[in-house]
Amino acid sequence: MTSQTQSRIDDSAALHEAFRRVRGTTQRLVEPLSAEDCAVQSMPDASPAKWHLAHTSWYFETFVLGNRDPHYEPFRSEFRYLFNSYYNGVGDQYPRPQRGLLTRPGLDEVLEYRAYVDAEMGALLEADVLSPALLEIAELGLHHEQQHQELLLTDLKHMFSHNPSGPVYRRTLDSPDPQPGKPLSWFRNPEGLQWIGYEGDGFSFDNERPRHRVFLHEFEFASRPVTNGEYLAFMADAGYERPELWLADGWAASRNWKAPLYWVPGEGGWERLTLAGIAPVRESAPVCHVSYYEADAYARWLGARLPTEAEWECAADGAPLAGNFLESDRLDPVPNAAADERPSQLYGDVWEWTQSAYSPYPGFVPPAGAVGEYNGKFMCNQFVLRGGSCVTSQDHIRPTYRNFFYPDARWQFSGIRLARDAS
Amino acid sequence: MTSQTQSRIDDSAALHEAFRRVRGTTQRLVEPLSAEDCAVQSMPDASPAKWHLAHTSWYFETFVLGNRDPHYEPFRSEFRYLFNSYYNGVGDQYPRPQRGLLTRPGLDEVLEYRAYVDAEMGALLEADVLSPALLEIAELGLHHEQQHQELLLTDLKHMFSHNPSGPVYRRTLDSPDPQPGKPLSWFRNPEGLQWIGYEGDGFSFDNERPRHRVFLHEFEFASRPVTNGEYLAFMADAGYERPELWLADGWAASRNWKAPLYWVPGEGGWERLTLAGIAPVRESAPVCHVSYYEADAYARWLGARLPTEAEWECAADGAPLAGNFLESDRLDPVPNAAADERPSQLYGDVWEWTQSAYSPYPGFVPPAGAVGEYNGKFMCNQFVLRGGSCVTSQDHIRPTYRNFFYPDARWQFSGIRLARDAS
Amino acid sequence: MTSQTQSRIDDSAALHEAFRRVRGTTQRLVEPLSAEDCAVQSMPDASPAKWHLAHTSWYFETFVLGNRDPHYEPFRSEFRYLFNSYYNGVGDQYPRPQRGLLTRPGLDEVLEYRAYVDAEMGALLEADVLSPALLEIAELGLHHEQQHQELLLTDLKHMFSHNPSGPVYRRTLDSPDPQPGKPLSWFRNPEGLQWIGYEGDGFSFDNERPRHRVFLHEFEFASRPVTNGEYLAFMADAGYERPELWLADGWAASRNWKAPLYWVPGEGGWERLTLAGIAPVRESAPVCHVSYYEADAYARWLGARLPTEAEWECAADGAPLAGNFLESDRLDPVPNAAADERPSQLYGDVWEWTQSAYSPYPGFVPPAGAVGEYNGKFMCNQFVLRGGSCVTSQDHIRPTYRNFFYPDARWQFSGIRLARDAS
Amino acid sequence: MTSQTQSRIDDSAALHEAFRRVRGTTQRLVEPLSAEDCAVQSMPDASPAKWHLAHTSWYFETFVLGNRDPHYEPFRSEFRYLFNSYYNGVGDQYPRPQRGLLTRPGLDEVLEYRAYVDAEMGALLEADVLSPALLEIAELGLHHEQQHQELLLTDLKHMFSHNPSGPVYRRTLDSPDPQPGKPLSWFRNPEGLQWIGYEGDGFSFDNERPRHRVFLHEFEFASRPVTNGEYLAFMADAGYERPELWLADGWAASRNWKAPLYWVPGEGGWERLTLAGIAPVRESAPVCHVSYYEADAYARWLGARLPTEAEWECAADGAPLAGNFLESDRLDPVPNAAADERPSQLYGDVWEWTQSAYSPYPGFVPPAGAVGEYNGKFMCNQFVLRGGSCVTSQDHIRPTYRNFFYPDARWQFSGIRLARDAS
Repeated sequence: MTSQTQSRIDDSAALHEAFRRVRGTTQRLVEPLSAEDCAVQSMPDASPAKWHLAHTSWYFETFVLGNRDPHYEPFRSEFRYLFNSYYNGVGDQYPRPQRGLLTRPGLDEVLEYRAYVDAEMGALLEADVLSPALLEIAELGLHHEQQHQELLLTDLKHMFSHNPSGPVYRRTLDSPDPQPGKPLSWFRNPEGLQWIGYEGDGFSFDNERPRHRVFLHEFEFASRPVTNGEYLAFMADAGYERPELWLADGWAASRNWKAPLYWVPGEGGWERLTLAGIAPVRESAPVCHVSYYEADAYARWLGARLPTEAEWECAADGAPLAGNFLESDRLDPVPNAAADERPSQLYGDVWEWTQSAYSPYPGFVPPAGAVGEYNGKFMCNQFVLRGGSCVTSQDHIRPTYRNFFYPDARWQFSGIRLARDAS
Repeated sequence: MTSQTQSRIDDSAALHEAFRRVRGTTQRLVEPLSAEDCAVQSMPDASPAKWHLAHTSWYFETFVLGNRDPHYEPFRSEFRYLFNSYYNGVGDQYPRPQRGLLTRPGLDEVLEYRAYVDAEMGALLEADVLSPALLEIAELGLHHEQQHQELLLTDLKHMFSHNPSGPVYRRTLDSPDPQPGKPLSWFRNPEGLQWIGYEGDGFSFDNERPRHRVFLHEFEFASRPVTNGEYLAFMADAGYERPELWLADGWAASRNWKAPLYWVPGEGGWERLTLAGIAPVRESAPVCHVSYYEADAYARWLGARLPTEAEWECAADGAPLAGNFLESDRLDPVPNAAADERPSQLYGDVWEWTQSAYSPYPGFVPPAGAVGEYNGKFMCNQFVLRGGSCVTSQDHIRPTYRNFFYPDARWQFSGIRLARDAS
Repeated sequence: MTSQTQSRIDDSAALHEAFRRVRGTTQRLVEPLSAEDCAVQSMPDASPAKWHLAHTSWYFETFVLGNRDPHYEPFRSEFRYLFNSYYNGVGDQYPRPQRGLLTRPGLDEVLEYRAYVDAEMGALLEADVLSPALLEIAELGLHHEQQHQELLLTDLKHMFSHNPSGPVYRRTLDSPDPQPGKPLSWFRNPEGLQWIGYEGDGFSFDNERPRHRVFLHEFEFASRPVTNGEYLAFMADAGYERPELWLADGWAASRNWKAPLYWVPGEGGWERLTLAGIAPVRESAPVCHVSYYEADAYARWLGARLPTEAEWECAADGAPLAGNFLESDRLDPVPNAAADERPSQLYGDVWEWTQSAYSPYPGFVPPAGAVGEYNGKFMCNQFVLRGGSCVTSQDHIRPTYRNFFYPDARWQFSGIRLARDAS
Repeated sequence: MTSQTQSRIDDSAALHEAFRRVRGTTQRLVEPLSAEDCAVQSMPDASPAKWHLAHTSWYFETFVLGNRDPHYEPFRSEFRYLFNSYYNGVGDQYPRPQRGLLTRPGLDEVLEYRAYVDAEMGALLEADVLSPALLEIAELGLHHEQQHQELLLTDLKHMFSHNPSGPVYRRTLDSPDPQPGKPLSWFRNPEGLQWIGYEGDGFSFDNERPRHRVFLHEFEFASRPVTNGEYLAFMADAGYERPELWLADGWAASRNWKAPLYWVPGEGGWERLTLAGIAPVRESAPVCHVSYYEADAYARWLGARLPTEAEWECAADGAPLAGNFLESDRLDPVPNAAADERPSQLYGDVWEWTQSAYSPYPGFVPPAGAVGEYNGKFMCNQFVLRGGSCVTSQDHIRPTYRNFFYPDARWQFSGIRLARDAS
């Protein structure tokens, strides 16, 4: 398959432009939030919005500003510890499950911190004095920040879900009119040796490289993600109560689950918590907020399976990198409107679980230094998801992009793409 | 012994005056705090400041305003559930360990809630239309609010202690000059039948009643609370490492303790986290933030014991109800400055653990209705503390006042008073 | 009240006789058991039968044989550590929750250990060479062994209850014919100063001393323990689902309880697991295997309360120390057959929860040395039970006997005696 | 690569012979054990020896005897529930963490159960009346029993390790004389399309099939497993304290680890618990009882990595299926004695962790019915190990054999084989 690429940002002016854009997006995301909304943490896996704001600034301060100038004066010296996520190479970290206890610095001070870092970075970029290596690390910082933009929204949604008074991030979801769901069809992919992974001039994470060959057996790939309507049929068929449909670990994990996360029983059937409050479960929209275990059980129930990440990448070859992303500002998956000529809705809407455990590509070598901890040390016990979601930035995603979460995670915008062996 | 009493507030005008005063104090306590400071919860046993602000208003709304007028329009209907602490008679409760997840209502809205309740209460008190029974419940609400004022400060201190950047509630502690500690002496109390418990015209909690007789054996009572200096000697004598000094449950609970809560090793010895930041451990001040287990082990180390609550109450008979209370605005225990003619520093500074398990007095009957849940259902597994602390309101305390906490609790301003059998 | 006493065993011959009798009883208790039955531990609070066999021998080896002769050769040197229960003064202890992992020494070797200790002790007692102090410690060892006889049976019952194949300790319970229950009546006790605690020539534990005065208010004491039939009425009245009946801690602890421990739904109503297998719930027999929380909730439901231990001791004054004990070999509580002239069934059948937290009597001083850890260090967080049960030895019990367990414990033969304030 | 095969046992007489042999081996394994040794369970992941004895018989009773004859009279009807491991298709299961609570049936009765099943199976095999499908299931039962033979020993070792009195399974390990370790060398494997997985006439588990193609990049494969001496160098280089060497999950899991499982500090250096008691750590023997996390960290420390399972299988192509297996009766890994012409010690001694997450082969379909739960439902969160160990039966292993455990598991005889990318 061919590898779709965006050009790498290798000049200071272009990076400055991107820096302003990405940093500004982050700031806009918190505009509807109060200081309290930004301070609280609802589980160890999630972080307060304020922490995301600070940590993404910490990245630039630590890896760009501090690396360039040994005499750099940090905004606050204690932030090096407080807002280090997991970089042992930088030093110890404030305990992750306690991030929500840091009422100080307050939101105001964290916004000052952002302004300070923005000014320092702006001056360097303006002056065009960053080495190519630091330009590269700065570009990585922008992709890093886009990842945290997504987490900021998913973590916020999780936190709001514990509040019975129904808080909303925004009043309405700008969703298109409902439309009848299209039947799912299958596309056949022949067996053969394929290339996957990133190669090119653009940006990519280390975990997408090196590009390498895999042998794929013939398989079929579903035309679109599984819809709520289809998932309701699984539920109606006692899908959550039949152990033969589940992985053993999934069966154990799911004993208190009756539906996807954020679904609540309403008067006229299931409803969902969204960032705009309670909304109906629309049958034609992709099912969302399911774990790997649920995706796997659903697939088994249908006599299908999840695709491997190599299958996904090959099936996506040539598909337009378009969809319902953060830029559409809907913050919610929408029904599929594409024609049936090829697999569609691969990008945006919902991350698609693959059956591939997250592991290093053949020949993978993490970069030297603390930045080498970015991806490599998590290559264990997690599963790869592909394609991005309605809260992912469009210019952040690539065909070779590998997201990863533990198989019981449900608070991401994660859905189901089916595959099956060719019969 | 005689029972010291304040007059009960039984007319509307006096209650209105007290209402304004107590409610105003609560409001002043949160003035130095940001919205974030008020939102966060550091452990299941503690509550966010905002929750204290709301719950104390909920009390008046539920038990006074709602009881008086069946058509009373609550400020927000969902608050009945959100801010119910533990009154099953009122209905279900939002889970206590999740109080810190409620970023909405925000602090602003909770302050509006307070203003709304204040206005409604003020109108009724002004018009003098509350029945004697409701006046009584309103008065209970003021004592209830004073209890939460204290908890607000202790919970805040606990939360701040998790923040390595050293947040302060206020810049300085207004402490008197250090003075040399006075040696501890003992006062003998003869055996005999004694009356304890509350009887009189003033306010008291149900758990202080009925006044009843107990037989006390001859005992000796320490002249003042144990000081930091004395406690340091226990630590220096390996007090935390010698199982023979500890109750079995205390030994198990204390395996990670090396010193009182909030003590941290400093360059020149132990230091303490206070509401004004790090401060030295002053030898002549009462030791504070110790559990029942530590108090008991310290006493055993010295060949003494803790007093029973009846002994405490009798030993305190006739002592002036004065001391370092919230009104002194020091928020920290201070060295004892009293003459040595009788046991002193009984009130204020630090709550004094007694060896008495918290249980009902003979003939105890909780009041009917949900308010009956106030005290009675906690009469199990806790120990009685006496005398109030530096964050207790002076007009809240009485000689017969029974505070109670689990024996492993350390985040209250709790200290040690010794007793011993007469030799 | 008068203090009923047995004479202290103060001569070697008498002690030898008692030693043979008590040690023989222990041995007889394990006769129906396989080596496997004796090896397994069902929860951290329980111990394997084999451990009880060894630990009771360890007592004599450590505190008598080893103390008398510094050159005493222990049976196995590692037993000093393996079978030390909780005596820090003797040294470290093998972790209590892992006692069931010790498949070696096997039952055979532990029985050899017993024989070895019996022979050594027998020789000393025969030769009459033990000092009075060691005779005293040896006598304590016999009472200690009787306590473990009871625990051996209660721990075994708990372990068997996890086996769905219905293991039995013995084929039949030798129970008398059922008889109609007698209505509960009340006996009035006047207020006044009373003596409680042990004083006399006989054996007593340190925690029963010193004898001292307490003031009791007038109270009424129930004629007999609460029966299964009465408890079924509480259950039928939704006793387990009404929070207003429960202590707060009890409500939390009881969320998965529907009935006393070991009760299982049968075809014709509730049935019980006994040491002879499944048996019907007989309405006229005392309810058994209830926690303090259930006893307290039942009493509150009936408008009564539990007695204090002082009330119990005074109400029992003069009652014959007789009842359904281990000696009757029924191993199950039986209906009350006594006349109604005074409170009956005080001894044997079921331990009776009192509302008294287990704490030291005024003037209590534990003996010096490791034996001082026997009782004193547990005086926290537990409640006193009185009167013995159907698995207690009759010659082990006294009116002043204080048993103690945590309020959520249900695996002892514990039942309910009611009291109430005089109206 | 070629696929080494044993012929499938497809006639009744041959199966009878194998049945007698395998069942006899199991019986011999428990001969040195007491009934108590066979009853106890040391952790939820391990089972009592008695349970292994019963469960392997349950397999034949449930899947062969019961399937053949609907009127088959089971030995005990309750065993269907008690000794079902995880087959939901058969019914509910007795809770796994409580297997050690089943003192009844005793070992005697379980051995009777085995004899009963042996007689029933023997009669059918003698009469040659089993259908081909049931013969196949019976053969699977023998491989199943061989797996449990290995677990019986590893679970026993784990249980013994909690006993400070040093129990031994057998007096001596029959180990060869120590010999100097040989330096590790590397063998190069060219890139290319390879076949892996089982195909042939012999027995294999479903998870080894179907045979399929994979593309392998050029890699190097270590000549032998990592030795204790090499692993000691990692430990001496602070391997357990350097986060940069560890996967994030491994770092969290290993905070209390200082050495491989069962290593204990001795006077002259590290020693190990073995099935024959304490033994020295012999530098030239393969390191054993390490988790995936330790294997991975060790490899990273050396600049190498673990092989994928496909790499392992290809590197093993043509190697003789010989080694230190259960049949050698050493029960302990021994130093490598092979020539250096090719990778050696692939089979026996220690299971070798691969970096491959355990997942279905392309086209994998589990068999219908409850037997389909054998392998498939565990294909999540575990890692593949290859080659068998010193407690695996030699005739149980195959080049395509896939064992699997969670990455933190250390109680299996698991060691480290290194690979690296071709430079």
